[in-house]
Amino acid sequence: MARVRKIPVMERLCEELRNLPGVGTKSSVRIAFHILDMDDERVQSLVNAILDAKAVMKFCDQCFNFSDSNPCSICASPERDHKTICVVEQPRDIMPFEQMEDYHGVYHVLHGTISPLRGASSDQIKFAELISRVVKDDVQEVIVATNSNVDGEATALYIAKILQPFNIRVTRIAHGIPVGGELEHADSNTLSKAMENRREIVLSGSEE
Amino acid sequence: MARVRKIPVMERLCEELRNLPGVGTKSSVRIAFHILDMDDERVQSLVNAILDAKAVMKFCDQCFNFSDSNPCSICASPERDHKTICVVEQPRDIMPFEQMEDYHGVYHVLHGTISPLRGASSDQIKFAELISRVVKDDVQEVIVATNSNVDGEATALYIAKILQPFNIRVTRIAHGIPVGGELEHADSNTLSKAMENRREIVLSGSEE
Repeated sequence: MARVRKIPVMERLCEELRNLPGVGTKSSVRIAFHILDMDDERVQSLVNAILDAKAVMKFCDQCFNFSDSNPCSICASPERDHKTICVVEQPRDIMPFEQMEDYHGVYHVLHGTISPLRGASSDQIKFAELISRVVKDDVQEVIVATNSNVDGEATALYIAKILQPFNIRVTRIAHGIPVGGELEHADSNTLSKAMENRREIVLSGSEE
Repeated sequence: MARVRKIPVMERLCEELRNLPGVGTKSSVRIAFHILDMDDERVQSLVNAILDAKAVMKFCDQCFNFSDSNPCSICASPERDHKTICVVEQPRDIMPFEQMEDYHGVYHVLHGTISPLRGASSDQIKFAELISRVVKDDVQEVIVATNSNVDGEATALYIAKILQPFNIRVTRIAHGIPVGGELEHADSNTLSKAMENRREIVLSGSEE
């Protein structure tokens, strides 16, 4: 006999939780039981946090990052260099740059990549919007920080090609061995990139 | 300057998510962005699943497991052996037994353990309720399946001691090397238990 009787509300909760990134079968069950154990007001507070974030956060209509204001605080800031645009695939890709505290330009979120394989063209991403910003804001450099997979590279090449007539700098962030990473753990693709992009060692005191 | 501007609704969502088991700082951010990316109806469906589970699931007043019925389907089943009670710490501990499909008794969820160190006494868990079931249902065996840490062992000993006058079997599930587990990965405590609970090898054909 099938001994584990499925309780519909619990099945549904676990299924919904499994749709979240990084939540597998076991952790969905663990989280579901945890929710049952929570006080009613704690559960309501979780639910409100979800609904409030969903209601408040909108796209900035300049860079297409999520923001609680439009334009977002980065696009609205006079302290940022609006002539340098860092192009990323997703809103979550912006956070590491901001945490670095070293980049003073602005961003542009494509919300995807072009993909010859999937048949995704530049119409399906915020590409025309990037071109219009480049023209309107007299942009001097576009730094392409799409991921280093097939689609990310194809998108980077496509951006470089389309922007060529504008006579601006189009650069790609470097890929290589992570700082502090050990060679023995480097995968072949990363190591291959690191070799390809190797640079002369400039001795201090000598001319480059 | 502090460059990463905190957006209050996002901070609150990430904080709520981090309270869930297994969700750390990075995964809370990942889930939060995923929620922003979801369609409104998908978000509402997640929220409803949480609220519905919370509203429907109650404690069974016999075994104190979570259930959508009272008594729960296990306590109400005439196919289960109601004279054998498996005692566990938490509702989530029942699932592995049910998945095994080999146990035909019923359960009792203590909702915690006694703990000499934390000063948690038997009043704070469903202990009196266990005794009253043992008496009322003419129980013949109580299998203690609390965890094998200090509090779980203390609780197991306490149950055995209190139930001694009732002249029933009180047993403890075996702890040892997991089936399929490799010796080289066994921790000292598990190996120590496995040695302590070693058994004679009974050769087929010989008498025990």
